[in-house]
Order: sequence, then structure tokens, then C-alpha cells
Amino acid sequence: MNNRDRTLAAARQLMNAYGADSIGTNQIAEATGISPGNIYYHFKNKEEIVRTLFGELEREFRLALTADIETPISAGRFAGFYLRSMQVSWDYRFFFGGLLQLLRKDEDLAERYRALQAWAVDNLEAIARQIWADGHMSKPKGRDGFRSVAVATWLIWSNWIRYAQISSPTHEVRSADMMDGVSQIFDVLVPYLDPAFDKAARRVLSRELAKLDL
Amino acid sequence: MNNRDRTLAAARQLMNAYGADSIGTNQIAEATGISPGNIYYHFKNKEEIVRTLFGELEREFRLALTADIETPISAGRFAGFYLRSMQVSWDYRFFFGGLLQLLRKDEDLAERYRALQAWAVDNLEAIARQIWADGHMSKPKGRDGFRSVAVATWLIWSNWIRYAQISSPTHEVRSADMMDGVSQIFDVLVPYLDPAFDKAARRVLSRELAKLDL
Repeated sequence: MNNRDRTLAAARQLMNAYGADSIGTNQIAEATGISPGNIYYHFKNKEEIVRTLFGELEREFRLALTADIETPISAGRFAGFYLRSMQVSWDYRFFFGGLLQLLRKDEDLAERYRALQAWAVDNLEAIARQIWADGHMSKPKGRDGFRSVAVATWLIWSNWIRYAQISSPTHEVRSADMMDGVSQIFDVLVPYLDPAFDKAARRVLSRELAKLDL
Repeated sequence: MNNRDRTLAAARQLMNAYGADSIGTNQIAEATGISPGNIYYHFKNKEEIVRTLFGELEREFRLALTADIETPISAGRFAGFYLRSMQVSWDYRFFFGGLLQLLRKDEDLAERYRALQAWAVDNLEAIARQIWADGHMSKPKGRDGFRSVAVATWLIWSNWIRYAQISSPTHEVRSADMMDGVSQIFDVLVPYLDPAFDKAARRVLSRELAKLDL
């Protein structure tokens, strides 16, 4: 890896471990052996590092919701939505832990996050509508039907990390927490899923969760 | 009101408006006209003010889940769980906006919050079980059934404020956001509710939401 990529990798790892607000370019320089001057050659400041990492997160999250989709959506691909998106939130968990603080400090980042959120809720709604069109779920009840399950899925997904951090006395997230998170998010659509499709998706989830690199 | 109560009221109001991390005893002194010395006579520091406000939040939230309950639980009281708990999260919205940061700075507060969270999830589960025992809902599906809907309810309730703050370009929460939040939380149990009970509870919700002091 070149110094730019090594800087990004170390920043992500350190922020995941200690929180974004505890890590600055000094710690990144120390951990990588790259001089602060060289880091500043690649990134104007810590905010630019965070923005670049958010760009990676965004790309991977968009792929998680859009790659390899054929209709009708198979139970395996359906499980993949949960597995891939959980991998993204694990890989960039620093981001969700300190979300509001990061966004308050950087209005450009806040705008990009809001755009991703709007895109995600629209896409989660479209996925649920497709599963319904495929005959694998019934129409969601509730005031806003499909919209409501999309928002609930987004809310639980994007807040699971903070919940896990708060629940732990050390404020650390462990991979076992992420496994519970997948199950919790999956349960949003469960009341509406066709039992056979539900069972097939769960089977894939249990098998693949063990292989995830959490 | 005496100076102690006025300090608490002003602290809550200022923190709700500007975030807990932006407000210190100086701003509270300025807003109330109470001297910093007098504030320090009542509270050792800002952390003690936050802890005291958390004590109020905790008392009110526990009441929201336990007061005036007779079995079978009426549709009106069921709606009351949502209305009362939303009032609490609105009144103390600074707390949920900066949650992880507040808890990281104060391990005693973190422990109290974890205890409240554990109590809340247990109670939300017990409420769902009671509604089921009353014949007003079916058993939740999903891996953990009643537990899963209790955790989802807690997750959406405790994270709604941050979601609303992030969604707004000014990071402000408005009362209309809270109305949407009630509907979003309510939808967790909706798939399982008896239609007549659901309809009656929704009627109370719409009527009473307009009266809430948000």
C-alpha cells in the first residue's frame, strides 16, 4: 500500500477502536510511521480523512443495496442485504458511533450523509416493494406501509452501533453485537415475509454470518 | 421557582436548543441572571446538572411506562405509552442528541442509563406480553418474539431525536418530527395488533398528539 492508503487504513482502524474524536493526525503518524508532513501532503486535515473514509463507506453501502440483483430477488440475495450492510457498518463503525458530532462539525459531510440516507430509505422501500411484487411478502400495515418498514430498517441499521456501544461498559462493539444487530434488523420485515422465504433467508444468514470478517 | 429549579429549567432549555456540549454554567448564569457562584452552590459542576436532569427524565420515563395501568390495558392507555414517552424524549431531547458523548464523559451516568435501558426493554416486553394476554395482539414472529419488538421499540424511541437532528439541515428537532416518531414507533407492534384495538389506539393518538406540549 502507498502512504495515502496506509494513512486511510490506519485512521479507520484507530477511529474504530478509540472513537473519531480521540484520533488526530499525530496518532495516525505514530501508528504508521508516516511523517505528519507526508500525511498533510495527502490530506489537508483530519476532516478530509473522515470525508474520504465516508466516500468509501458510501460506495460500499450503495453496492450492498444494488449489486448482483436479479428479479425475483432470491432468499440468498435478500439475506445479502443484511450481511453486506452490516459488514459496512462494522468496517466504518467509528462513523456511526460519533455520527451527530461528525456531521455538526462538517456541513458538507452532513449534506452527503443526508443524501445517502434519503437514497437508502428510497432503495429499502423499493426492495420491500420488489419482494412483495415477487410474491414473497404481504403489504406492510401501518400508516405508511412500505415507507414505514424502510425507515425502521434504516433507523435500526444506522443506530445499532451506538446502542451496542452504550450497552457495553467499555463502549466497545464486538462482532457478537453485530450478529444480534442483523437479527434485529431482519425482524422488521419478518411479520410480512412468506414463511418459506423467511426460513430460506434465515438459513443463509446463519451460515454466512459465521464467515463475515467482523 | 427557587434558584436551583430555575438553574435546572434554564439548563434544560438551553441544552435542548444548542446541544449539551455547547452549554456551560456561564451561559446558564447569563440566561437566568443567577450568579455563577450561586449556581456552584447548588451544583458542583455541569455534570451534576446533567445528572440531575437525567434523574428527572428517568422518573418521568418510568412513570410513562408504569402509571395508571389496569388490565386489560385499554387502547387509550396503550396509546398513552407512546404519547407519554415521546413527551419525555422531547422535554429532554438534548440527552438523546449527545447520548454517547454524555455517557463517555460520566461513567456513573452511563451505568444509570444502562440500568434504565435494561429496565425499559424488560417493561416494553412485559407490556407487549400483556397486550397479547389481553387478546389484543398475536405473538410476534422473529427469532426472539416479544423481546425483539421490545428492543425495536426502544431503539426507535431512543434514536428518533438523533435521526430528526441529522435529517434537518439546521440539526434542530421540531414538534412535527416528534409526531412522525410516534407513528414510526407505533408501527413496530402494528403487524401484530388486533385491527379494532389498533384503530382505537390510533384514534386516541391522533387526538392527543395535537394536545401534547411539544
